[in-house]
Amino acid sequence: MVNFEFVNPTKIIFGKDSERQLAQEIIKYGNKVLLHFGGGSIKKNGVYDKVITVLNEANIEYIELGGVKPNPRLSLIYEGIKICRENDIDLILAVGGGSTIDSAKGIAVGVPYEGDVWDFYTGKALPKTKVPVGVVLTHAAAGSEISFSSVVTNEDGMLKRPLDHEVLYPEFSILNPEFTFSLSPYQTSCGIADIMAHLMERYFTNVRGVGITNRLLEGAMKNIIDNAHFVLENPQDYDARSEIMWTGSIAHNNLLNTGRIGDWACHMIEHELSGFNDVAHGAGLAVIFPAWMKYVYKNNIDLFVQFAVRVWNVEQDFYNKEKTALAGIAKLEEFFKSIGLPVRLSEIGIKEEHFQMIADKCRTFHEDDTVGNLVKLSREDIVKILTIAK
Amino acid sequence: MVNFEFVNPTKIIFGKDSERQLAQEIIKYGNKVLLHFGGGSIKKNGVYDKVITVLNEANIEYIELGGVKPNPRLSLIYEGIKICRENDIDLILAVGGGSTIDSAKGIAVGVPYEGDVWDFYTGKALPKTKVPVGVVLTHAAAGSEISFSSVVTNEDGMLKRPLDHEVLYPEFSILNPEFTFSLSPYQTSCGIADIMAHLMERYFTNVRGVGITNRLLEGAMKNIIDNAHFVLENPQDYDARSEIMWTGSIAHNNLLNTGRIGDWACHMIEHELSGFNDVAHGAGLAVIFPAWMKYVYKNNIDLFVQFAVRVWNVEQDFYNKEKTALAGIAKLEEFFKSIGLPVRLSEIGIKEEHFQMIADKCRTFHEDDTVGNLVKLSREDIVKILTIAK
Repeated sequence: MVNFEFVNPTKIIFGKDSERQLAQEIIKYGNKVLLHFGGGSIKKNGVYDKVITVLNEANIEYIELGGVKPNPRLSLIYEGIKICRENDIDLILAVGGGSTIDSAKGIAVGVPYEGDVWDFYTGKALPKTKVPVGVVLTHAAAGSEISFSSVVTNEDGMLKRPLDHEVLYPEFSILNPEFTFSLSPYQTSCGIADIMAHLMERYFTNVRGVGITNRLLEGAMKNIIDNAHFVLENPQDYDARSEIMWTGSIAHNNLLNTGRIGDWACHMIEHELSGFNDVAHGAGLAVIFPAWMKYVYKNNIDLFVQFAVRVWNVEQDFYNKEKTALAGIAKLEEFFKSIGLPVRLSEIGIKEEHFQMIADKCRTFHEDDTVGNLVKLSREDIVKILTIAK
Repeated sequence: MVNFEFVNPTKIIFGKDSERQLAQEIIKYGNKVLLHFGGGSIKKNGVYDKVITVLNEANIEYIELGGVKPNPRLSLIYEGIKICRENDIDLILAVGGGSTIDSAKGIAVGVPYEGDVWDFYTGKALPKTKVPVGVVLTHAAAGSEISFSSVVTNEDGMLKRPLDHEVLYPEFSILNPEFTFSLSPYQTSCGIADIMAHLMERYFTNVRGVGITNRLLEGAMKNIIDNAHFVLENPQDYDARSEIMWTGSIAHNNLLNTGRIGDWACHMIEHELSGFNDVAHGAGLAVIFPAWMKYVYKNNIDLFVQFAVRVWNVEQDFYNKEKTALAGIAKLEEFFKSIGLPVRLSEIGIKEEHFQMIADKCRTFHEDDTVGNLVKLSREDIVKILTIAK
């Protein structure tokens, strides 16, 4: 186990009718709200009306800023910053999924910063403070409702960049599983892949002596697998939606990462896929993760055997680690296919001619220009992984 | 899953040399500290010297209040409150295990309260604020370093009473696994039983649709079982001590309780055992838990089958739930015995003549004068459980 610091101050209010507690949380910070949301699905499924009713009943003023796209854009964040400054906004209320929350976080750190908020995403500056952020969650996927992360796409070059900083934790997040009932099967599956990916990024580490987080991560993965088909077959089942929603948050609460060094290469590669052609993040991850595993598993084969046996209940061949490890990877790929996700780049419109460009754009985070921790991948390695996934 | 709110604001600093970060955490709250500790083991094992060195180097003033006993006493809390008031103490630093931390929390909520701090433990009043509390942990057991709980014994009647309130979360806790190297095998085993009990109290619930927390609790229990014998055989093994220490905190971080209604009857019964004859809390739990299970398992036999199969790897007899459930309970009892703990009341000096008195003293928490949630136990039930454990 490596040394760590851990604190997660986000207050979670979970369950049926939990949005009724929205006003009492907001007024702790003021009564002028930027209501931030996406493309209008919240107006169709009734969530918008429920939120507005609560705000109106509590005499909370709000200014609306909709239009967040999947892979949220920097230009809308600039617009939000301007609105917040001109109107002395007390709290940004993100009503939506990961893109809306990430966009709200971008606005929140941008308001008190004199420079360009993009500086935070390129690492040129560190945020020191932010406007408070509240969340009403409508999608189980990104975990942004409980995380210190925000991922934003700069249209200038379609660069998708993550910012991780403890100032980004939302003040509170309201999780009503009923608000995810109207998600389409594809949206649900993409969320499931994103949640699995968050767990797997943390799971695949070379750090030893991490028994407790191994067990917690394995348990969370098993719970996603247990519930994935059930929720797709029963999209309005409250218990199933609850399992996916709360596991999605737990997957990105860094408690399950304590003492570990996660990998994150697949996220970095996928960011370039979705930055390039707007593929859903979860779908991109479903394509990249099995290919990455096939490329790297020999570097820590015992961990891949453990993954196969504990997470996928693969019958272990005690004389053949490779066979067991590959069976686990095959199970993951079958799982993604079984919930209707693509597992090849050809299915999401990315061709061999794009591989080098994607590898070249991929943000590396080690001094030697590599990405990932289980195995440090060069741009050449990334092309090879994309080739496996083609 | 039942509706829930969850937030845990305690900052954890974990690892080798983590005590070096002590001063920078303290000075966020001031520079006058009440240094609170137990019977002097921290002076023998070097922890006291390490803490004092950090305080002195940072010019942090401190007043010492040692002498916390296992099952911490109300009288010492009164003394601590007086010292804090007379000296304008900014932060109470608990250096020790659960008893010291619980005592520190008692002092912390007592200082700003005009009435008798015991009011909080009897439910006559609710705490609104407290003096900040920091922790340097030296024992993996109670989980108080990350919890909102404090358990205190009033010598007047030897009444042991718990207080649970969100104001009680410590501001920060420093966890250096090396500080647990010098614990005796018996202390270590009592800690292990306490951690297992915290997980089992949460696990045994009638609430359905709690797949994610089932999995997390099972994973944490398996990790304790995986590491218990290893840490007893290798008391100075850093990784093994880390596993027990961090799992102990996670076990009492209410994340693993979200959406559930835990049982807690065994804790209530055990509090009367240790209030009565000062038996170590973990030892008392090792006696009570298997007996409680034998008494209640038929009320939710599927859950006990799940416990047997998933936590203890019992080979399930699909035609005989009872056999499977009882095999799991037997495994738990064998486990406690194998790590040197008592599993009968006769081993801890409690006789049949005491059973009615213990049952009568046991704090019930339902209106119908019962205790526990999986099964609501009357005083008659408690006597029967004690009889099973005799």
